[in-house]
Amino acid sequence: MAEWLWFNGEVVEARQVSISPADRGLLLADGVFETMRAQAGRILWLSDHLARLRAGAALLGIPVPFPDDSIAEGLLELTDRAAAPLAALRLTLTRGPGRRRGLWPPDDPVQPTLLGSIAPIAAVPMPAAARLVICRSTRRNEFSPLTRVKHLSYGDALLARREAGDRNATDAVLLNTRGHVACSTVGNIFVRDRNGWATPPLDDGALPGLARARALVALGAEQRSIEASALRSVDAAVLTNSLGITPVSHLDDRPLGVVESPAALAKLYD
Amino acid sequence: MAEWLWFNGEVVEARQVSISPADRGLLLADGVFETMRAQAGRILWLSDHLARLRAGAALLGIPVPFPDDSIAEGLLELTDRAAAPLAALRLTLTRGPGRRRGLWPPDDPVQPTLLGSIAPIAAVPMPAAARLVICRSTRRNEFSPLTRVKHLSYGDALLARREAGDRNATDAVLLNTRGHVACSTVGNIFVRDRNGWATPPLDDGALPGLARARALVALGAEQRSIEASALRSVDAAVLTNSLGITPVSHLDDRPLGVVESPAALAKLYD
Repeated sequence: MAEWLWFNGEVVEARQVSISPADRGLLLADGVFETMRAQAGRILWLSDHLARLRAGAALLGIPVPFPDDSIAEGLLELTDRAAAPLAALRLTLTRGPGRRRGLWPPDDPVQPTLLGSIAPIAAVPMPAAARLVICRSTRRNEFSPLTRVKHLSYGDALLARREAGDRNATDAVLLNTRGHVACSTVGNIFVRDRNGWATPPLDDGALPGLARARALVALGAEQRSIEASALRSVDAAVLTNSLGITPVSHLDDRPLGVVESPAALAKLYD
Repeated sequence: MAEWLWFNGEVVEARQVSISPADRGLLLADGVFETMRAQAGRILWLSDHLARLRAGAALLGIPVPFPDDSIAEGLLELTDRAAAPLAALRLTLTRGPGRRRGLWPPDDPVQPTLLGSIAPIAAVPMPAAARLVICRSTRRNEFSPLTRVKHLSYGDALLARREAGDRNATDAVLLNTRGHVACSTVGNIFVRDRNGWATPPLDDGALPGLARARALVALGAEQRSIEASALRSVDAAVLTNSLGITPVSHLDDRPLGVVESPAALAKLYD
């Protein structure tokens, strides 16, 4: 079966898409992306995703080459083409090819690359439950404004995920440079202790996740800094991202309790 | 004139090279690179560059798909084809296309992308002199092992460079999360005060630059932490990278002294 992409304004077969070897997304991670949940012919939280993409693009000074309604139309066409009951839709924006080497952005006109791709996913939660370890190999840089947008610079998350695999886990908790919990490699984290549910504040390096904002309300959670050592007294935890909720079964090999209201959380994705 | 690349083992015209839209270098910055100085038909410090590329690839778990002598041969062919008296040669390695979405690396066999590109450069120093500002918008994450390899995650350097442009400077000094000087966006920094020449230690987030190692000896410099406030009592500074030495003319608008021995430093690149 052909694989389709939405590429610079058109739905095309993946094998027809050629990314320039001078694309600054490839050479310098100069871009942002969004991952969206597509289900039953619609895209969940689409306008919020596009708003966050634009906020990231504005931070980097990359023009978004289409208005929201054109992007929405293209992504919906792509979603229809994929015909999957449930899919992860990724929209990637880069500054496009640089016409000179080095870090300075290309002279105008910039020709950004805007790429939508889609892949079927199984169900919610994606893995039945996450086995989390606390990442030792790297930290999340809460001083960087890039932690507040979905930037292509995924190096530290990739290192942490690699460590998780090595330690027989499915994901890792990234601490920030002060040793506070920031997030997992692909989602926000909510933990429950005797004070109730909590999630790290954005200042601690947490991505302002769209699911995070909704889960904050659904769980009645508070935003507060969580020291790594405080994870030892957590009795339940969930990871959230735009694709779904994943309960955490183990934290550094310690089994956690079952979250009582996965149904209420799953409802966020209806 | 045709532009040439060395792509997965062959010298080809740039317009014939197509990067997969699924390349993890593009989507996740999953790769490393080297920038080398090519002059008079040879590549400066080539074996050191290849060793550092391999160290970065090993950290990420990306196989390097060719032995050093094949890479050297390809890059020399590319250099000959470019026929520039002086050029910047970039070698980029990514994990290649992912066959499934998300962060987990693709199943074996990984098909990495290895891309060499070349661009003529003017002379040494590249800009006549650098006007530096101390970056306010972001920090370098000295906790990340990615600061010790040339990783594709260039987001923070791009932000800092963008800030430099906005502030009428040519480059920015990145501080680490503790407020110590780490490096500029594309080079190591050496500063001179009444105690002599110094450069930040690797633990402060400085890249282990090949030029840095040589300039340490040439300048008789010491490696020590440099607080941002200590930059006010610096009377000279230079930036070093594999392409050349750039004297710093201004630091946050304060004019600096002329470096007495640029010739001795330039000799490093003979």
